[in-house]
Amino acid sequence: MKDYQIDVQLSTTKKEKPAFNQLSFGTVFTDHMFVMDYTKGKGWHDARIIPYQPIMLDPAAIIFHYGQTVFEGLKAYKTKEEEVVLFRPDENMKRLNRSNQRLCIPEIDEEFALFALKKLISIDKDWVPNVEGTSLYVRPFIFADEPYLGVSPSDTYRFMIILSPVGAYYKEGINPVKIAVESEFVRAVKGGTGNAKTAGNYAASLKAQEEAEAEGFSQVLWLDGKEHKYIEEVGSMNVFFKINGEVVTPELNGSILEGITRKSVLELLHYWNIPVVERRISIDEIFQAYHAGELEEAFGTGTAAVISPIGELFWQGEKITINNGNTGDISKKIYESLTGIQTGNHEDPFGWRVKVD
Amino acid sequence: MKDYQIDVQLSTTKKEKPAFNQLSFGTVFTDHMFVMDYTKGKGWHDARIIPYQPIMLDPAAIIFHYGQTVFEGLKAYKTKEEEVVLFRPDENMKRLNRSNQRLCIPEIDEEFALFALKKLISIDKDWVPNVEGTSLYVRPFIFADEPYLGVSPSDTYRFMIILSPVGAYYKEGINPVKIAVESEFVRAVKGGTGNAKTAGNYAASLKAQEEAEAEGFSQVLWLDGKEHKYIEEVGSMNVFFKINGEVVTPELNGSILEGITRKSVLELLHYWNIPVVERRISIDEIFQAYHAGELEEAFGTGTAAVISPIGELFWQGEKITINNGNTGDISKKIYESLTGIQTGNHEDPFGWRVKVD
Repeated sequence: MKDYQIDVQLSTTKKEKPAFNQLSFGTVFTDHMFVMDYTKGKGWHDARIIPYQPIMLDPAAIIFHYGQTVFEGLKAYKTKEEEVVLFRPDENMKRLNRSNQRLCIPEIDEEFALFALKKLISIDKDWVPNVEGTSLYVRPFIFADEPYLGVSPSDTYRFMIILSPVGAYYKEGINPVKIAVESEFVRAVKGGTGNAKTAGNYAASLKAQEEAEAEGFSQVLWLDGKEHKYIEEVGSMNVFFKINGEVVTPELNGSILEGITRKSVLELLHYWNIPVVERRISIDEIFQAYHAGELEEAFGTGTAAVISPIGELFWQGEKITINNGNTGDISKKIYESLTGIQTGNHEDPFGWRVKVD
Repeated sequence: MKDYQIDVQLSTTKKEKPAFNQLSFGTVFTDHMFVMDYTKGKGWHDARIIPYQPIMLDPAAIIFHYGQTVFEGLKAYKTKEEEVVLFRPDENMKRLNRSNQRLCIPEIDEEFALFALKKLISIDKDWVPNVEGTSLYVRPFIFADEPYLGVSPSDTYRFMIILSPVGAYYKEGINPVKIAVESEFVRAVKGGTGNAKTAGNYAASLKAQEEAEAEGFSQVLWLDGKEHKYIEEVGSMNVFFKINGEVVTPELNGSILEGITRKSVLELLHYWNIPVVERRISIDEIFQAYHAGELEEAFGTGTAAVISPIGELFWQGEKITINNGNTGDISKKIYESLTGIQTGNHEDPFGWRVKVD
């Protein structure tokens, strides 16, 4: 690896670390952060690791008004041998650049970004928790910081990486959750930003999520924006179903996120010779499969939760219970294999695990 | 009006003002800004006017990651009598709260917000330019500032108002612009956030805008996200057409913005007894009307540009020139009436003009 130039200013004081067996998600941050600036004509410059501290921005900065921003999410784990490892971080960097293209943000050097990310984690490696189910959540993000109220791409940007030791994303852990099929609100539509990891998609999802929670559901199942008929995602995860022995998941259609956990699940299933198909799936089909006794499992996949089994689905006044509300065999097998590879407890035949020296 | 409590801390130094006859859009800001905080359980609190200064935020603040934010835009004008006036500001406050609802942001007290806005402008009233075509652009915005990486509504928010003396939004001024009909990208779809004034809609528009500009167009004409057939908006404006003596504009359908200029144009046309209809309009219909010799005018409406005539429309390889590329009579009449009312040069039979102090 090239010896990229990153200025490092270490924190003179260390924060107190939280108890690693009592971590929640995304509320505590480590001692340092990575920052790099972009200026039109000059490119990306001034890469630095500095103490975790507030950002100062002009109130007219584009991020506040027009949301020109992208982000990524990945996790670092501590193995039994006290090594720190990442899961497919190159995939996150590739996706970050795909998101950049959609949002008119200048691309980053993926290799350099990964180098910076590893260097930051290595400086804060004592923050990587070693309790089962925990990890160090890594959040790279880029935002437009030019003070300008016209609607056009910014001339300046900031690329940052922050780190947060986390426990399970869902209080339920790997236990099945209750999901409402969303029939009013739409997360994204083809031609929009649904397949980019950008703030607006998440802002758009809040209202449906809030209403679903008020009715006792954990998440919503999103349908397509055109016909309100085809399944897209569940909450902020991709979704899989097992129907009559075959696993199916919505095909990449321009409006769903190209999940790295999704991709890994597909590769695992192929490796195991379990039949799996990416295609359009209507919500009708799922309910019909249930009534025919063929809907065997359903689960969401994402970096934060890894695998989140769906125990109940509610749609148009009808509630169906999947696999008697229990975690299915395939969900369990995938969860164990993925987390096993991620944490270093299993062999990694795919070369997915990457050491943070 | 109630005497609301706002702490005022005046700037000890004054910035140099730009030449009012050389203003661009949204690059220069006044000496002061308004800030108010929201804390769950406490409500909105600590309303203050302070010197214009950078915002400090935790890098994990929700605004950077999930775009939970809304904004407004309106203009203050200086009349010949040196009075400062606003145009229908109550409509902006109402819309701000409608946007708040969609984005799960706590509502503001509209009357208080208007009081604060007037007080801020009155403190910075020397910044209201008095040259024809100029105004003081007013930007209220609210954003989520809680440091939390889970996807859910924030427990804390900041409401701010900043002011910027501006010239014409388009370099072309009231001259007709060239517009490309967008057939790949989509701004918004029903069930999404298209009718809220929120960052993600604008982020989603950048790519199409950038590609259109590279091909020599000023803006794109957005079609609906479901069928790519019906007209929605032009750039970040609402759009009107005059066909065979009748003015038509897309009906409010959940995905287009409820423009205040749009509303005012409709009311002006009714007042003048000019036939006007809000309904679904397909892009086919516009091109057919052109070929039948019945497409008489086309124009965008919005706070920034007021009226922006469309001189050329490009779609599927065909370019049509509207009204020989000249500003139409209705466009001109509306522009003159609206700006006349806004600046105090015309009578205001509707009570749209509101004095600051």
